Amino acid sequence: MIYVAVLGYGTVGSGVVEVLERNKEAVRGKTGDEIKVKYVLDLREFPGDPVMDVLVHDYSVILNDPEVQIIAEVMGGTGAAYTFTKQALEAGKSVCTSNKALVAAHGTELMHIAEAHNCNYMFEASCGGAIPIIRPLRTSLSAEVIDEVTGILNGTTNYILSEMSTKGAEFDDVLREAQAKGYAEANPEADVEGHDAGRKIAILSSLAYGQYVDYEDVYTEGITKITATDFKYAAALGTRVKLLGTSKKVGSKYFCMVCPVMIDAENPLYGVMDVFNAIFVHGNMLGDCMFYGSGAGKLPTASAVVSDIIDEARHIGKCLVTNWDNSRLPLMDIGEVENRFFVRMKGSLIDNLCRVEKVFGKVQAVSVPELADEFAFVTDVMREAEYREKAARLDGILSMIRARF
Amino acid sequence: MIYVAVLGYGTVGSGVVEVLERNKEAVRGKTGDEIKVKYVLDLREFPGDPVMDVLVHDYSVILNDPEVQIIAEVMGGTGAAYTFTKQALEAGKSVCTSNKALVAAHGTELMHIAEAHNCNYMFEASCGGAIPIIRPLRTSLSAEVIDEVTGILNGTTNYILSEMSTKGAEFDDVLREAQAKGYAEANPEADVEGHDAGRKIAILSSLAYGQYVDYEDVYTEGITKITATDFKYAAALGTRVKLLGTSKKVGSKYFCMVCPVMIDAENPLYGVMDVFNAIFVHGNMLGDCMFYGSGAGKLPTASAVVSDIIDEARHIGKCLVTNWDNSRLPLMDIGEVENRFFVRMKGSLIDNLCRVEKVFGKVQAVSVPELADEFAFVTDVMREAEYREKAARLDGILSMIRARF
Repeated sequence: MIYVAVLGYGTVGSGVVEVLERNKEAVRGKTGDEIKVKYVLDLREFPGDPVMDVLVHDYSVILNDPEVQIIAEVMGGTGAAYTFTKQALEAGKSVCTSNKALVAAHGTELMHIAEAHNCNYMFEASCGGAIPIIRPLRTSLSAEVIDEVTGILNGTTNYILSEMSTKGAEFDDVLREAQAKGYAEANPEADVEGHDAGRKIAILSSLAYGQYVDYEDVYTEGITKITATDFKYAAALGTRVKLLGTSKKVGSKYFCMVCPVMIDAENPLYGVMDVFNAIFVHGNMLGDCMFYGSGAGKLPTASAVVSDIIDEARHIGKCLVTNWDNSRLPLMDIGEVENRFFVRMKGSLIDNLCRVEKVFGKVQAVSVPELADEFAFVTDVMREAEYREKAARLDGILSMIRARF
Repeated sequence: MIYVAVLGYGTVGSGVVEVLERNKEAVRGKTGDEIKVKYVLDLREFPGDPVMDVLVHDYSVILNDPEVQIIAEVMGGTGAAYTFTKQALEAGKSVCTSNKALVAAHGTELMHIAEAHNCNYMFEASCGGAIPIIRPLRTSLSAEVIDEVTGILNGTTNYILSEMSTKGAEFDDVLREAQAKGYAEANPEADVEGHDAGRKIAILSSLAYGQYVDYEDVYTEGITKITATDFKYAAALGTRVKLLGTSKKVGSKYFCMVCPVMIDAENPLYGVMDVFNAIFVHGNMLGDCMFYGSGAGKLPTASAVVSDIIDEARHIGKCLVTNWDNSRLPLMDIGEVENRFFVRMKGSLIDNLCRVEKVFGKVQAVSVPELADEFAFVTDVMREAEYREKAARLDGILSMIRARF
């Protein structure tokens, strides 16, 4: 019998208890032993819920019980969650989590504490919900030198952009609707400003390249400035706008950024709609591959946490190789990153194309019949700094979205 | 230092040696130790190739060398490959392979021999080439009760169907072109008749459901009867024809089949073109997920073999849980499986629709202007046996393709 404690009986925590119960036989088969939830830690009471039998309010009960070998930290945040995780690992108890904020902020330190105490710190559920991506990067693509990770990493923003794309609606309206449906939080900032995706691409990049990427170093733009008009141009170009987290090796350097990008149907991420997530990986031997699935949700996320519990149960007393080292991955200045740029401008195409091409050289021009007072163009590939310098010389630019097609 | 032997210096074997050499640092980082190819077994000589330094012609040299702990069997076939694998596992040496024929025919026995001798038999490269699917099924989706696996599992047939779809060409012409490009073998039967996909869906199903699926029990239809005309209807319906391997739980029973299927753009497999493969998995907690990538090719396949070498190197002396047990998964009679059916018929739609609907009930009719002497219809969902019985009552049926949309 393997005894587990669950920290936090919120959405994910109750999901973990449910998955362990409903899929008991499958879990036993994969573990080779029974897994039993001995404690659930939460400050609240849950009258009538069977969890009351195992509910505790004091973490020291869990920490001091030598029978508990694995702890699922699904309480969130970087305060108590950090302290509790650190204490557990120092006591030789393995910890797994869905808490991307904690992994992004303190993952390096926590993994090294685990290594020093022959236990494990795992976080399959921190990126892409139920999509198996952390473990495949660590163990399946272990023979690869990975040179790109690009993902649709946030379900809320992908839902909003999908609705804007298919219904022609404006951002604010779709956001309100998403909040009503529970797809977006009351305070949506972490999602719509790209911070959530930024934490995830930092975690995935650290794992892919073996060195620590600080999420605070990730250049981040959200989707709040994307409009229904942008999607009219996107349709004319046969493209869609997606919020992508991308990190890529260019020569011997890396860049890491989150921003809205126009992609066309050739891109495997083009078809990823609604709350689905997908992560594209390029390796030097395998070429392209992609992982697709539900990026969030109670049971999918809980299932990923339980897969970590099973893996930790099978490796009691043995630290699996630590995912990345303490050194910081040096990131390129964002000005050096190359992209194409989709640019909207005031005025008519005919009156302004010469002026645009004088600054940007040959561009791909696009106009939409119903938009009489403006037009757009897509530049060739150039450095971000070069784009900024050129754009500053051109009056009348309304907005810009990066383009990869 | 971990010593490895490679059996067979063909395409995959030379790829394994190349991946270990080119990605040496990455492999050492993931293994925590250096991996060295001590022997390559092949009956041929390779004058001038550095492999000559480690080439042996006699397997007993490898078998009797206690330093060799891991063997990559990439020679193919079910004769010598079977004997050599069995002997290695009985000697406590872990084996990994890309040999799907051997895994499909003897995988159950070989895994149980490995278990008895505290070593491992792994086969990540046997399905989907470089796509991480075996290990994710085993370890990442370990908390799931899986109820469906559907994949585009054969690159050759997907290339042929993609070309037929985009160019309107006939099967024979595209096959010849694929052979010229090296995408199809001189004897293409195993691919185009669906046997290769049948072995792969048998392996994936065994893994997903934990009981052994005999590939000889898998109902298999190939793509040789698919025509350019079928693709005209597919285009009219907004669908594509793909060769799918599917296994699914229906109530308490399972079915497993390989056949061409019409799918629409809502299906995540719709966009998988050319030699790419993809595997869709449905779990009771996670919902839908999909794995996509290169299904074949020297370096992608070799990369998957090397990921197994690394995993085995990290688990010397410890058998990871065996993937499926000795019991045979009972499969439904194919007549009980439910599908929709796309059916082409001689004659005009107007003259025949009543006759069709008298037999099949309400159908979705479709006609293509340039095809004057025939039309097609798509039935509602019904059992295969019911379809066969009804089709036998209707004169003039030209062909049938299963439809899932």
